[in-house]
Amino acid sequence: MLVVMRHGATVAEIDRVVRTIEEMGYEARPMPGAQRTAVGLVGNDGRVDASRIEALAGVAQVIHVTQPYKQVSREWRPENTIVTIAPGVTVGGPDVTIIAGPCSVESEEQIIAAARAVRAAGAAALRGGAFKPRSSPYSFQGLGRRGLELLALARRETGLPIVTEAMDEQGANLVAEVADCIQIGARNMQNYSLLRVVGRLGKPVLLKRGMAATVNDLLLSAEYVLAEGNDQVILCERGVRSFDPAVRNMFDLTAVPIVHNLSHLPIIADPSHGTGLRDKVTPMARAAVAAGADGILVEVHPHPDRALSDGAQSLDPSQFAELVSEIRPIAAAIGRGVVHLPPRVAGIPAVAVG
Amino acid sequence: MLVVMRHGATVAEIDRVVRTIEEMGYEARPMPGAQRTAVGLVGNDGRVDASRIEALAGVAQVIHVTQPYKQVSREWRPENTIVTIAPGVTVGGPDVTIIAGPCSVESEEQIIAAARAVRAAGAAALRGGAFKPRSSPYSFQGLGRRGLELLALARRETGLPIVTEAMDEQGANLVAEVADCIQIGARNMQNYSLLRVVGRLGKPVLLKRGMAATVNDLLLSAEYVLAEGNDQVILCERGVRSFDPAVRNMFDLTAVPIVHNLSHLPIIADPSHGTGLRDKVTPMARAAVAAGADGILVEVHPHPDRALSDGAQSLDPSQFAELVSEIRPIAAAIGRGVVHLPPRVAGIPAVAVG
Amino acid sequence: MLVVMRHGATVAEIDRVVRTIEEMGYEARPMPGAQRTAVGLVGNDGRVDASRIEALAGVAQVIHVTQPYKQVSREWRPENTIVTIAPGVTVGGPDVTIIAGPCSVESEEQIIAAARAVRAAGAAALRGGAFKPRSSPYSFQGLGRRGLELLALARRETGLPIVTEAMDEQGANLVAEVADCIQIGARNMQNYSLLRVVGRLGKPVLLKRGMAATVNDLLLSAEYVLAEGNDQVILCERGVRSFDPAVRNMFDLTAVPIVHNLSHLPIIADPSHGTGLRDKVTPMARAAVAAGADGILVEVHPHPDRALSDGAQSLDPSQFAELVSEIRPIAAAIGRGVVHLPPRVAGIPAVAVG
Amino acid sequence: MLVVMRHGATVAEIDRVVRTIEEMGYEARPMPGAQRTAVGLVGNDGRVDASRIEALAGVAQVIHVTQPYKQVSREWRPENTIVTIAPGVTVGGPDVTIIAGPCSVESEEQIIAAARAVRAAGAAALRGGAFKPRSSPYSFQGLGRRGLELLALARRETGLPIVTEAMDEQGANLVAEVADCIQIGARNMQNYSLLRVVGRLGKPVLLKRGMAATVNDLLLSAEYVLAEGNDQVILCERGVRSFDPAVRNMFDLTAVPIVHNLSHLPIIADPSHGTGLRDKVTPMARAAVAAGADGILVEVHPHPDRALSDGAQSLDPSQFAELVSEIRPIAAAIGRGVVHLPPRVAGIPAVAVG
Repeated sequence: MLVVMRHGATVAEIDRVVRTIEEMGYEARPMPGAQRTAVGLVGNDGRVDASRIEALAGVAQVIHVTQPYKQVSREWRPENTIVTIAPGVTVGGPDVTIIAGPCSVESEEQIIAAARAVRAAGAAALRGGAFKPRSSPYSFQGLGRRGLELLALARRETGLPIVTEAMDEQGANLVAEVADCIQIGARNMQNYSLLRVVGRLGKPVLLKRGMAATVNDLLLSAEYVLAEGNDQVILCERGVRSFDPAVRNMFDLTAVPIVHNLSHLPIIADPSHGTGLRDKVTPMARAAVAAGADGILVEVHPHPDRALSDGAQSLDPSQFAELVSEIRPIAAAIGRGVVHLPPRVAGIPAVAVG
Repeated sequence: MLVVMRHGATVAEIDRVVRTIEEMGYEARPMPGAQRTAVGLVGNDGRVDASRIEALAGVAQVIHVTQPYKQVSREWRPENTIVTIAPGVTVGGPDVTIIAGPCSVESEEQIIAAARAVRAAGAAALRGGAFKPRSSPYSFQGLGRRGLELLALARRETGLPIVTEAMDEQGANLVAEVADCIQIGARNMQNYSLLRVVGRLGKPVLLKRGMAATVNDLLLSAEYVLAEGNDQVILCERGVRSFDPAVRNMFDLTAVPIVHNLSHLPIIADPSHGTGLRDKVTPMARAAVAAGADGILVEVHPHPDRALSDGAQSLDPSQFAELVSEIRPIAAAIGRGVVHLPPRVAGIPAVAVG
Repeated sequence: MLVVMRHGATVAEIDRVVRTIEEMGYEARPMPGAQRTAVGLVGNDGRVDASRIEALAGVAQVIHVTQPYKQVSREWRPENTIVTIAPGVTVGGPDVTIIAGPCSVESEEQIIAAARAVRAAGAAALRGGAFKPRSSPYSFQGLGRRGLELLALARRETGLPIVTEAMDEQGANLVAEVADCIQIGARNMQNYSLLRVVGRLGKPVLLKRGMAATVNDLLLSAEYVLAEGNDQVILCERGVRSFDPAVRNMFDLTAVPIVHNLSHLPIIADPSHGTGLRDKVTPMARAAVAAGADGILVEVHPHPDRALSDGAQSLDPSQFAELVSEIRPIAAAIGRGVVHLPPRVAGIPAVAVG
Repeated sequence: MLVVMRHGATVAEIDRVVRTIEEMGYEARPMPGAQRTAVGLVGNDGRVDASRIEALAGVAQVIHVTQPYKQVSREWRPENTIVTIAPGVTVGGPDVTIIAGPCSVESEEQIIAAARAVRAAGAAALRGGAFKPRSSPYSFQGLGRRGLELLALARRETGLPIVTEAMDEQGANLVAEVADCIQIGARNMQNYSLLRVVGRLGKPVLLKRGMAATVNDLLLSAEYVLAEGNDQVILCERGVRSFDPAVRNMFDLTAVPIVHNLSHLPIIADPSHGTGLRDKVTPMARAAVAAGADGILVEVHPHPDRALSDGAQSLDPSQFAELVSEIRPIAAAIGRGVVHLPPRVAGIPAVAVG
């Protein structure tokens, strides 16, 4: 950490900063400059509360040199973390993983049709919401526990592992009984109580970037999960708030190489929420893979014009099949394949709820 | 709702939109224009899922005319809602309410000193966090249950009602035993499970705007609380994410007159988080009152340079007293006073935790 | 400047940074830390091109300690600069200056009516556009040279000095013949060629903040004018782009105390563009003064519903008079008055165009 | 255009809106709804000034249905515009065009080395700035006229057509004597005077998106050039301002398919400015091509660590050659090739300045 003093800061003010740093248990190293003095704090273990020092007289600015996260950092672990959702279905390895399915589970017929369609086209996992965070209390909120049962049924039918969202502690416990991977939505990215809960459930976690979260914020939220002993975390870029009403969100694909540089965790991209517009999903899914994303998360509905939520950004099965066919050569161009769902094995455990 | 068709949309495409609207139970009214046709949806009760229609062929855009919220709307209730935190301490009436105190409760000595100082200067309620959402899992997370006990003690000592944050369902139940008003922080503004929980606890709620929440999003989140039968909601502007690193947040004071126009709920402003810089707190607190805010929420610490969190944006007691003295004439200039804490009455109930 | 090396940077990489700094003519001071080494650059005169160093192997980040601007800095000149628009009409002194008038000059009748109305209500200068930057080439672009003549006429009639915009070099020369203060609009804030031109014209400059300009960017643009020998620069906050469609712009009033802290130049605020909505102009004008703005710039039109541009954010004369009456006690509350237009003196020079 | 009235608007208010629309020369069509009345304006030719109507009593909101631009719209011209920079070098056709070169022209040796390197690797045009808009007046501002001479020399040496920036009218005339394509930088995207000037110079224009420009703003700025009779306009995504300090800009690649949907003009992408970080340039260049960009604009310097500007985001020649080799298979995956510079023809005209 570097404490930059104001131009004209007095010797007493500089001394006060030095003493405060020392009281906090670190070493202080003053550096007089041409225009102003700076004081380096040496030995930062990531727990320094800069706010205390910013409050001192004569301080112009406090600059952070050390990253505030630890276990998610590539400096902490240089090799890539590979997250295993189900036997043979990994995220973060050499190949790209396609996770697809409807926004919400709506009915047995719908989820089974969706699961069969995405499996046939090449998806390796099924997404679908049983608990839906909706901005209006009057919108469809998901089928809840019944939705989880239908997801379990779809897995029995197709073999696809399940990725589904948890919104609170009680829901997380229910979800954990069924899901192969627990999704934390963008609106809950900084719901630290929920992050701690899912960190202790022993299942892989798919953590979506919040609507105004910096990459740093995203990594800090992941750190909450790792701090509970669970390193099976997949990050997900899904678009952030911007000033341009042309898109629902601004899809920040540069986050993919940035995360790969800073962290060992895999990062996938969700072009459905990332753009909010069906005809933008395919080009941006291709772009995500070209940028190096470890997977994509795509909304597919058997009949988008009858979807109870997110119809406008859902692909129909034939559009999704075409998307997969466009993804393969892009992945190949950068030396990657696409993760295949392993063949069905007799006796896959079928988990029922409750 | 208005469905704008693409230039050159076919008659069949327009018919499909009309039929879909009718299937959904509403009336459709096509309007051919010079360049393109639009189809009006009449009878929108706020539950229409536009996404389904956006997905139809030939649709260029769906435009929302009806507000998605109801009970929070001034069209639903024209007169101002006045929230009562404690007998004589209201928010949203003719006078401006000052709520002040430290970021976190740190010790008995600290919270009592803070409470006495802010009461002496003119605050009508005490803020202070027992459960703290921190972006790093390694930062100080608050004293928890012990913090609530100390807040109850501070209330007994000073008579100041307590505003403190809840982060999850379990914490909300604890907080509700002590707090006079339950705060939902910016990071949890779209934690809908928590909003439902606090909506049922029967205590006033202080709902802070999320870091990338539009005013519309804020009102929709408040709608979750009202939908549970609790209309005692205070909204709070606390700054939003921006591109300018000169400030921690961009303090969007125009939200104050916008909310007053759209909703009957009171709105206060938090210049401490809204600016993140101590020497900006006083001018921006004045600006908030001049803009018409129903109150201000200010961080005050007996010794900001020893604060465990947010020291850089906390005022010391004498700075706070000066701020209050600057607020009074500004309030008077627009015909408002400052809410006074009513004199102590013998036998104020002292609530203990557990 | 501080060059932060990656964790694990080699000795050779650190040496390369040190040598590069020395080749550039500065002193390098390596600082080994607990987790990584940093190298301080001492003697930065504001001309260091960090980009060259960022490109070196092993460099994680380059952190700027020195401000990139000079002459606009309060460290360069501690006392406030007072800009004189006309005899007795200053900006940046103890009192608050009100500049008002229509978005565009539309006709003799309109501009004279506007000038008389704003003068009567208490404005000290008249604004009005002759050259209008419009986002569509098909919108009304202003009366041009004829507009300048009408502004000169309005000055003769009322004594109000004129603030009007220049969009290019040729226009700036024309504007300088008539205007008392040359406005540079938000869209041209980084039109450096234009900034140099107006820096040499010897007239005060009103520089509006760009729609995505940081305070730092604004100060750097002002530096272009000062670098040409003209220190008569008034900065103007007018709202920036944000994610919230509830407002045309997000009015960033915190920029006022930030600029006062960093620079000696005065800063005024434009609540008309800052909010884009007529009923938000008055509360936000009050807020601007309460935040410490040295003046306000307000759009007033004799008949807003017939305005050729910006009708929705223009006040009518009676609304403006009421705004001024609300501003006075707010200014008084922080110890300021309102600048009065000095009484007419016989023989005020009437300048004609061409 | 749709004028939405407030809930409870009076008949007189609705009539006033109808009459105003009719006075403006359009047809008004009132539509009473369940909660509020809306009034449609029929016959909008893109010149309606909504602001005038927004100002009327009882109006809640004005909604634009018609696009404000015309000639740039795909509705105006359905087939793609192909821009020809030089014989055989086009942008917007079936193949992807690679434009590369240094940020600034620094010396004969540098620009010739850069031109040879990018030609050898597969670029079809050379970029390089002679006039540089820099945020500080004390930074290197380009070689000016001498820079243009060196660009002409580089063209003679390599056959590569030249893309270079103009910052003002005088510079545009000089640039037009040498350049094959005139670049308008992000900071001048809304410098309408300059857009008109370059619209009349008869050379292709490369128009970069402003830092806070919506796609709509970008198209409106292009409309200024087309309105002068020049349809040879290439749009360029180069990143926009965002809240995340992890990147210099947020690279909004979704703008590529959005522009392709709304306009017939080609759009390329600049991953160098779009990310600001060298190791992000290659993955994001790949992503741009996968998203469907008609070309890429890449900064390449023979010795990035000695560059006078933008060294941190410049590739060296071998990195650029590798980038091109990664682009080819991505383009092929979506059925596109890469534009080849046609073989040298004897007697290519060598244009000298002045």
